Amino acid sequence: MASIFSKIIAGEIPSYKIAENEHALAFLDINPLKHGHTLVVPKVETDQFFDVEDKGLTELILFSKKIAVAIKKAYPCNRVSMQVIGLEVPHAHVHLIPINTLDDCNFFRPKLNLDKEAFLNIAEKIKRHL
Amino acid sequence: MASIFSKIIAGEIPSYKIAENEHALAFLDINPLKHGHTLVVPKVETDQFFDVEDKGLTELILFSKKIAVAIKKAYPCNRVSMQVIGLEVPHAHVHLIPINTLDDCNFFRPKLNLDKEAFLNIAEKIKRHL
Repeated sequence: MASIFSKIIAGEIPSYKIAENEHALAFLDINPLKHGHTLVVPKVETDQFFDVEDKGLTELILFSKKIAVAIKKAYPCNRVSMQVIGLEVPHAHVHLIPINTLDDCNFFRPKLNLDKEAFLNIAEKIKRHL
Repeated sequence: MASIFSKIIAGEIPSYKIAENEHALAFLDINPLKHGHTLVVPKVETDQFFDVEDKGLTELILFSKKIAVAIKKAYPCNRVSMQVIGLEVPHAHVHLIPINTLDDCNFFRPKLNLDKEAFLNIAEKIKRHL
């Protein structure tokens, strides 16, 4: 069965898209830890990040870099953290989170509760810096 | 001033080395969350991960993949998480942590207290799978 991220890639489930290329898609995490918290996923569905073949992994990290640079411009911060955990959705995904403190990327913290307009504004703000 | 990781790369500070190549070094985190918790650093000192130039970033991620595969063989787990936070040491570094639960890579958890023999055994165990 296609993962939820494959359904997002296929456009069957809506998302707040930031950017895409041939290999990867970036869109907002709908359970964000911070404004600007973005997911980057390979278009070829692979459960584990380190099972993505070398070329795919390379493309994924360089694409993530572009997105991270835009996030940092949109949401000034000490740095953009990158986290690959992946216990919930069996489709490799990179969390990009603008952080100033360790707690900013603490997945045990309650997530932000944002409405559609807020997500659209965040996506626009990041896209302006791409 | 050289970062603590540059001093480790230069051999001025000892470490429990796992592997190295022209571009990167992998060694055990001395404040590990789990047995097998490893750091991978680029040899060229750069504070922020996403400031590493494209070729360096590519080399770093492919080298990290090799180390992650060996960690997973040495310490069977659901997957190896990758985390780049970097608020403490201004030299880009990738945490590779074998995890079964989210709490396994929770940086707010107390770190393991291991002695030299334990670290040497962990390093040997991972190196056997490279």
